[in-house]
Amino acid sequence: MDEMKKLVAKEALKFVEDGMVVGLGTGSTTAHFIRLLGKLVMEEELEIYGIPTSYQAKFLAIESGIPVVSLDEVDAIDIAVDGADEVDPNLNLIKGRGAALTMEKIIDYRAGTFIVLVDESKLVDYLGQKMPVPIEVIPSAWRVIAEEIEVFNATAELRMGIKKDGPIVTDNGNFILDAKFERIEDPLDMEIELNNIPGVVENGIFADIADVVLVGTKEGVKKMER
Amino acid sequence: MDEMKKLVAKEALKFVEDGMVVGLGTGSTTAHFIRLLGKLVMEEELEIYGIPTSYQAKFLAIESGIPVVSLDEVDAIDIAVDGADEVDPNLNLIKGRGAALTMEKIIDYRAGTFIVLVDESKLVDYLGQKMPVPIEVIPSAWRVIAEEIEVFNATAELRMGIKKDGPIVTDNGNFILDAKFERIEDPLDMEIELNNIPGVVENGIFADIADVVLVGTKEGVKKMER
Repeated sequence: MDEMKKLVAKEALKFVEDGMVVGLGTGSTTAHFIRLLGKLVMEEELEIYGIPTSYQAKFLAIESGIPVVSLDEVDAIDIAVDGADEVDPNLNLIKGRGAALTMEKIIDYRAGTFIVLVDESKLVDYLGQKMPVPIEVIPSAWRVIAEEIEVFNATAELRMGIKKDGPIVTDNGNFILDAKFERIEDPLDMEIELNNIPGVVENGIFADIADVVLVGTKEGVKKMER
Repeated sequence: MDEMKKLVAKEALKFVEDGMVVGLGTGSTTAHFIRLLGKLVMEEELEIYGIPTSYQAKFLAIESGIPVVSLDEVDAIDIAVDGADEVDPNLNLIKGRGAALTMEKIIDYRAGTFIVLVDESKLVDYLGQKMPVPIEVIPSAWRVIAEEIEVFNATAELRMGIKKDGPIVTDNGNFILDAKFERIEDPLDMEIELNNIPGVVENGIFADIADVVLVGTKEGVKKMER
């Protein structure tokens, strides 16, 4: 499994060119990418800047020797490399198991090319098949939002912490609801619907946005493109 | 001016019944309402609970003797009483001059009856005529969001503090962009468009949601209904 993740991470390096601003995703597969990118930057003395999508990505980038910048400091993001929890045949995604979905969406949506790294266990026939949709919400509104999500034939649970008592709190100071749907027929429509519930900051459906998905399989890296 | 505000605040009291849960808005007109409601509760020994939309409303409610509850503690909000910065002929609103738009939208949208208190200077032919649309955003994304708002033929400015150096920070820990539009033709559509920019938490367009608008005029209180 970890070998597969390293393999796709290595494949993603091929998209990197000298002088690029690179969005750095969150999660275990992207972590491999960040480490490999740091190595490449040092060995080939590249001028690469990383824009992290979370504290996790930021700490790892600094540790790996990648200069880190914020959205305020750049004119454009050339590529973003990030993981996903589900990928459907049209390259729609569910993201947010690591609770970083809002910053991920902020960065990934604005990248010239958005490259997704997964292993084959993440491929699904339709979104919602295995995973809930993480939804970042204003803390005081979590309960009413959970009730309103039921209108879409879904159940929503407040994500609880493990090394923290009570609910987990995101890097932005909010809560996460995990909404389990029967089946998401129209991802773009559902993404918009969820964002329009007052108190929803962002949701983990990433529709119509991935350009390339690199899939780690036992037979090597498979490439899906739009 | 202040007399007009008191007059509409008094008129709004007629919507209050014993046993109700009342959403408490933010701003100077609503402040009159909260004080009058506190008086009424004490004089007539009513069992009223208030749900505040901001620290301002919360502090004032407590000071006025209204028991305060959170969204977690109630099954429903019977009425919400709040101000507005612009009201168009179809009762669409711009709100958020006080930077409380997100909690206001969370509460106002969920009220059985949403009552808006304004003076006649707030009535406009179309939204955007006088006021910018306040947009609450994740701090690190403010600059890219400001650029993206220009796509809608608008200019966006980061709201700066007066008693605080640098940008104002909302009760939720975010920034406010004030987006000046030429003219908002379709408020509901623009409300949805703005919410779907990654990093936008909520925006100050409140379309299709006000039930009653009480307008303070020199000739007394005028009532607009849908």
